[in-house]
Amino acid sequence: MSAIPDIARPSGGLREHYRRVRERSLALTGELSPEDCAIQSMPDASPVKWHLAHTTWFFETMILASRPGYHVFDPRFAYLFNSYYEALGPRHPRPQRGMLTRPSLDEVMAYRAHVDAAMEKAIAADGEALQQTLILGLHHEEQHQELILTDIKHAFFANPLLPAYSRDASPSAGATELAWRGHPGGLVEIGHQGAHFAFDNETPRHVVMLRPFRIASRPVSNGEYLEFIADGGFRRPEFWLSDGWAKAQAEGWEAPLYWLSDNDGSRSVFTLSGARALDRHAPVEHVSFFEAAAFAAWAGKRLPTEFEWEAASRDFAFGQVWEWTRSSYDPYPGFKPFSGAAAEYNGKFMVGQLVLRGGSIASPPGHVRSTYRNFFPASARWQFSGIRLAEDA
Amino acid sequence: MSAIPDIARPSGGLREHYRRVRERSLALTGELSPEDCAIQSMPDASPVKWHLAHTTWFFETMILASRPGYHVFDPRFAYLFNSYYEALGPRHPRPQRGMLTRPSLDEVMAYRAHVDAAMEKAIAADGEALQQTLILGLHHEEQHQELILTDIKHAFFANPLLPAYSRDASPSAGATELAWRGHPGGLVEIGHQGAHFAFDNETPRHVVMLRPFRIASRPVSNGEYLEFIADGGFRRPEFWLSDGWAKAQAEGWEAPLYWLSDNDGSRSVFTLSGARALDRHAPVEHVSFFEAAAFAAWAGKRLPTEFEWEAASRDFAFGQVWEWTRSSYDPYPGFKPFSGAAAEYNGKFMVGQLVLRGGSIASPPGHVRSTYRNFFPASARWQFSGIRLAEDA
Amino acid sequence: MSAIPDIARPSGGLREHYRRVRERSLALTGELSPEDCAIQSMPDASPVKWHLAHTTWFFETMILASRPGYHVFDPRFAYLFNSYYEALGPRHPRPQRGMLTRPSLDEVMAYRAHVDAAMEKAIAADGEALQQTLILGLHHEEQHQELILTDIKHAFFANPLLPAYSRDASPSAGATELAWRGHPGGLVEIGHQGAHFAFDNETPRHVVMLRPFRIASRPVSNGEYLEFIADGGFRRPEFWLSDGWAKAQAEGWEAPLYWLSDNDGSRSVFTLSGARALDRHAPVEHVSFFEAAAFAAWAGKRLPTEFEWEAASRDFAFGQVWEWTRSSYDPYPGFKPFSGAAAEYNGKFMVGQLVLRGGSIASPPGHVRSTYRNFFPASARWQFSGIRLAEDA
Amino acid sequence: MSAIPDIARPSGGLREHYRRVRERSLALTGELSPEDCAIQSMPDASPVKWHLAHTTWFFETMILASRPGYHVFDPRFAYLFNSYYEALGPRHPRPQRGMLTRPSLDEVMAYRAHVDAAMEKAIAADGEALQQTLILGLHHEEQHQELILTDIKHAFFANPLLPAYSRDASPSAGATELAWRGHPGGLVEIGHQGAHFAFDNETPRHVVMLRPFRIASRPVSNGEYLEFIADGGFRRPEFWLSDGWAKAQAEGWEAPLYWLSDNDGSRSVFTLSGARALDRHAPVEHVSFFEAAAFAAWAGKRLPTEFEWEAASRDFAFGQVWEWTRSSYDPYPGFKPFSGAAAEYNGKFMVGQLVLRGGSIASPPGHVRSTYRNFFPASARWQFSGIRLAEDA
Repeated sequence: MSAIPDIARPSGGLREHYRRVRERSLALTGELSPEDCAIQSMPDASPVKWHLAHTTWFFETMILASRPGYHVFDPRFAYLFNSYYEALGPRHPRPQRGMLTRPSLDEVMAYRAHVDAAMEKAIAADGEALQQTLILGLHHEEQHQELILTDIKHAFFANPLLPAYSRDASPSAGATELAWRGHPGGLVEIGHQGAHFAFDNETPRHVVMLRPFRIASRPVSNGEYLEFIADGGFRRPEFWLSDGWAKAQAEGWEAPLYWLSDNDGSRSVFTLSGARALDRHAPVEHVSFFEAAAFAAWAGKRLPTEFEWEAASRDFAFGQVWEWTRSSYDPYPGFKPFSGAAAEYNGKFMVGQLVLRGGSIASPPGHVRSTYRNFFPASARWQFSGIRLAEDA
Repeated sequence: MSAIPDIARPSGGLREHYRRVRERSLALTGELSPEDCAIQSMPDASPVKWHLAHTTWFFETMILASRPGYHVFDPRFAYLFNSYYEALGPRHPRPQRGMLTRPSLDEVMAYRAHVDAAMEKAIAADGEALQQTLILGLHHEEQHQELILTDIKHAFFANPLLPAYSRDASPSAGATELAWRGHPGGLVEIGHQGAHFAFDNETPRHVVMLRPFRIASRPVSNGEYLEFIADGGFRRPEFWLSDGWAKAQAEGWEAPLYWLSDNDGSRSVFTLSGARALDRHAPVEHVSFFEAAAFAAWAGKRLPTEFEWEAASRDFAFGQVWEWTRSSYDPYPGFKPFSGAAAEYNGKFMVGQLVLRGGSIASPPGHVRSTYRNFFPASARWQFSGIRLAEDA
Repeated sequence: MSAIPDIARPSGGLREHYRRVRERSLALTGELSPEDCAIQSMPDASPVKWHLAHTTWFFETMILASRPGYHVFDPRFAYLFNSYYEALGPRHPRPQRGMLTRPSLDEVMAYRAHVDAAMEKAIAADGEALQQTLILGLHHEEQHQELILTDIKHAFFANPLLPAYSRDASPSAGATELAWRGHPGGLVEIGHQGAHFAFDNETPRHVVMLRPFRIASRPVSNGEYLEFIADGGFRRPEFWLSDGWAKAQAEGWEAPLYWLSDNDGSRSVFTLSGARALDRHAPVEHVSFFEAAAFAAWAGKRLPTEFEWEAASRDFAFGQVWEWTRSSYDPYPGFKPFSGAAAEYNGKFMVGQLVLRGGSIASPPGHVRSTYRNFFPASARWQFSGIRLAEDA
Repeated sequence: MSAIPDIARPSGGLREHYRRVRERSLALTGELSPEDCAIQSMPDASPVKWHLAHTTWFFETMILASRPGYHVFDPRFAYLFNSYYEALGPRHPRPQRGMLTRPSLDEVMAYRAHVDAAMEKAIAADGEALQQTLILGLHHEEQHQELILTDIKHAFFANPLLPAYSRDASPSAGATELAWRGHPGGLVEIGHQGAHFAFDNETPRHVVMLRPFRIASRPVSNGEYLEFIADGGFRRPEFWLSDGWAKAQAEGWEAPLYWLSDNDGSRSVFTLSGARALDRHAPVEHVSFFEAAAFAAWAGKRLPTEFEWEAASRDFAFGQVWEWTRSSYDPYPGFKPFSGAAAEYNGKFMVGQLVLRGGSIASPPGHVRSTYRNFFPASARWQFSGIRLAEDA
């Protein structure tokens, strides 16, 4: 997969854009049972049904609620499906999202239809005025589309039957030689600028000073990660950050999440298509930052900073796995959050997490762009997260 | 509701008995959605679907598995639906039962039908030989019928929408004067004896020496419990056992479970029919042993021992709420557990719990008998548990 | 060691009795450093210094505080050294007792001297009137003398240096044949009666109906417990109560507390005299109720009830280890707690614990009597607790 | 207090430098009792005695152990007093440091004397060769001198008696007007370079691009922080980072650590000199990063980045409180850890923490320098940590 251009506003107008994104959510969840959609396998994950309702709540709250004549579908949903917006009032506790057997999946679908109908009218009447918030809502829904996949994968892994989300398996990747791309360093411009949509955390564009470095042409593969494991990578503290070592010991990590131990020594992994043989040529995924950094230390390399990654991103392909960077998720200089209720979208999470760049096979089209800043805690493993190496020149 | 005679073997033969019990489980769950049936609201509770499958697994494992020609429905179910039988191999961890979106409710229903068909054949062929285990299996399923109700009530209470399990509400009870029934004490026979079914923990029948005592003619009412609360019952440690006081402080208890705080000072409670006005004449329910004992201390009385309760049980009506006794759940002298795999049924839980006697509105007919020993930890509140007072004569 | 007669009131009068008990506390702690006396190794244990102060606080609060002319040593000590008496006001939280570097050990010694001087005056003036509370205070202090030993042993075990509390080691015991003592059952009188001191939980004396049984002439030995371990006792759930098995797995139990794993296969144990070779003939100690019950099940026997134990106690020697019984710690019929603030002494702990009978090498003289009811949770291991077997006749 | 120049190597030679630092540790702890020195009030803090021994272990392990003829004081200390050096073998678990009543304080003092004597010989023989490691050891000990003060303060605060560490109280500060110092931004050099000692995390010196900004001439005062509290600062989520708000709610924060609630509305705080009236003109201290960032948001300002802080540091005085920056603790570009066992000194902690700059009243002379990078988790409050504001120009 090669780098995808920044196309945030597809052809066909706002209404078509709205429809396409909303329908994609349904397409992703169409094969799941009501029970599948109701489950929450850990506090960090959410039920599929909740994702479907929350993304709908976003449009209802941010756009429809203030429009004359709009009839709120169910006033209690403001409490149930608010994620974390303190300014919008109290909300159902996150770890309890799996308790919501009601409203049923059918009712959530009716909620979606109700809001979609009202949104289409609103777009017809005031498309221009709503455009900015509406586009944010669509990117928001697309972010949740990726979470639907990561969360259902985690949920299915909690079931000893290891159900498959989909029957399609990725074709096996061929071996690719790893090459090193040099970058001369110096002053580079970092961050988003221009007419296309970007999240507030990608701005403002600003100048960063870099030293010369080299960056790998492709992510670390499963086969390479197997070498790390075989060399005692999970038993040798010298490669690990202190908190990472403690976490790995406490949780008994011996391999990336979803790797299955086989009795006969061959490896298989749990995928969205169920258990499959490990593809040694595919990028390693479902590693935490700690496991990424330990691998890099073992390999005598390091992770790139997010600035190095962005500056060099035209020189390599990305979009198969999110790539952990060696950058903590701090605000860019001069950062200003979105205005209004959306101010809580990104800014209040800017501490204690690490930046990931790139995008994954679960990312919606358009989200894979060079300025996108994904972020997760250093111990998170349930995202499609992998490793790209770098080194000083 | 008056005391129900010990009828364990209804008319109509084994096949009719089997059908009647199995159909009652379906009747209890017929209005629930697949999502409702999949949820687990705390580690002590189980999903409805799990109850439906586990009771089926019991027949399959204890009766069918060893019969020639029986085809196991799904060999993986032995792992998924074993509750706690160590002798029968490893099992899915209890706190993870809510993760089982698969098998679906439909598949569990098919599992029930498959086992029912095989059981009917087995009954026809070998009814006499199977009778003992089969009757145990039916009483086992009936116990889970009560748990289906207690667990779905707990699950629905976790939902801010407070859904109703049923539209029928109990009619309001009339006021009943509390009278004291005297018992002369002396040597009494305690425990089950005879042809009717009883669990192993009700045996052997044995002689216990009692001192004279008096016991209340009816359980403590909601109105009486309100007086305790109004008199500072939840804020005065002098009435509480030490562990009970600690628990009440740690969890912020201010009233029985499911009591709702109303802004205007009137009380309502969450019931299987949703939120309802508190019926002051109905027995208080959903109190822990700690709250029962504290009430008794406040009232200047005490809880009866399980021996007093049983000895005097013909002198009062029971069956509306389980009644906490002042007896720890210890084995009767000479206790012998069931044989075979069923040995784990009761015996291994005989420490750290308290005995409850009587039966509740959620108890199946036939379970409300004077020798039945129910048991729960002192802090348990989600059962239909109430209070009957006693005092020394 | 043979059974010790019930002598609660030694010769020499109250003053001598008071002195003897108080001095014994100092004798037990004289070799400990201020640091040793300040440490709290787990929430269930208390620092030695706290024991020394708390027993003093008991006399000050229960006797001196209300006497005209008594000058309270430090009014803040009422908060610091109250253990659990809710009626006597708020108190320093139990798990924080190890935070009290101040008052220093020297100050606590001065506190003891101050109270002792006032107590001697009080005894001289009002000995008769004070006698009952004073005797309770002395038995209370003696109970804490045993806890001083159990708690310092636990604290020293938390130190990788495994310090010795004392240089004296118990002489190795000789082998003793185990014999079975029969008891015909029937009506027996249980509980304390008479002029000698007893705690409220030993009363009232009452009649209990027993079935015929046999009881072992001596406790289970280390050598016998080794056989249980060698036969997979800690790996076979069929011997264990359900909660016991869960606890053993969660905490990784493989042997009694304080048993050390030796590389060469020989066993040593941590004792008050440091690490020592295991004495196969000595009674096994530092087992929980769970481990005692599992051993009994493995041996095809059971634990005696506390009533069997007491009824048969004249037929065997006891006092080396506390002996777990198969009786939950429930109140005796007609139980009345001590009056006044001492009402909280025992009664409020009467749930969720098991009764131990006998007494240990750490028990003060006079505490080893046939009616004494010690009690601890089923998982407690840091007391000198062992096993005596019984069986139905 | 004004900025202190970078003097790492005092006059008088290595021996005098060694003596001066080692004696300062004793001077800081001379008034503490053995009990005071043994206590550990939370897992993040260590006993004073442990600090005294660990700093000694550092010299013994890093310098003396490999020298011919050196006799290790006690081989078990390598296990007891290793802090976190995985390469140097297993170690006593950090949360258990308070269990070490043995070795006694006296023994630790003898250990210090033993190592000091050997070190003086080593310095005399090989001063030049040892200089680099020795200087590191001295700076290491000085870091622990600050921790001795923060940890004993925390420990004393856990005691309801609120003991004083010292009788000297800081004189009340006068009011100081806050001024804003402008900085033009552009390329600045960050990090240590030169002959003076610095920790590895201060290097390498590198170029950073800054935007124009302004920075406050002094830290935020207690009086200013009181205004934040009075304006609902601890009850208004809009000022808080998401994790900070969750932490503040979970722990019930209502003011900085050590602030005492007074009944009459006047404020006092716990200090090293015991409880004192709050000095409104003194810098606020013992705030977490979360509380610092919330204050800045309330004030309409922000925290400076560590690069802004360092670039502007000549324009203001610092050294009274550690100042939280808005920079996560990431490695500098081209960072190389110390060599050998000291590689674990800083590098392995470079994730999940925030950088503090400046220095506090508890910091040893010489540690207050413009390139020093202190670091703690965002929720840490027990350090002398305060707030300096910044804003975009």
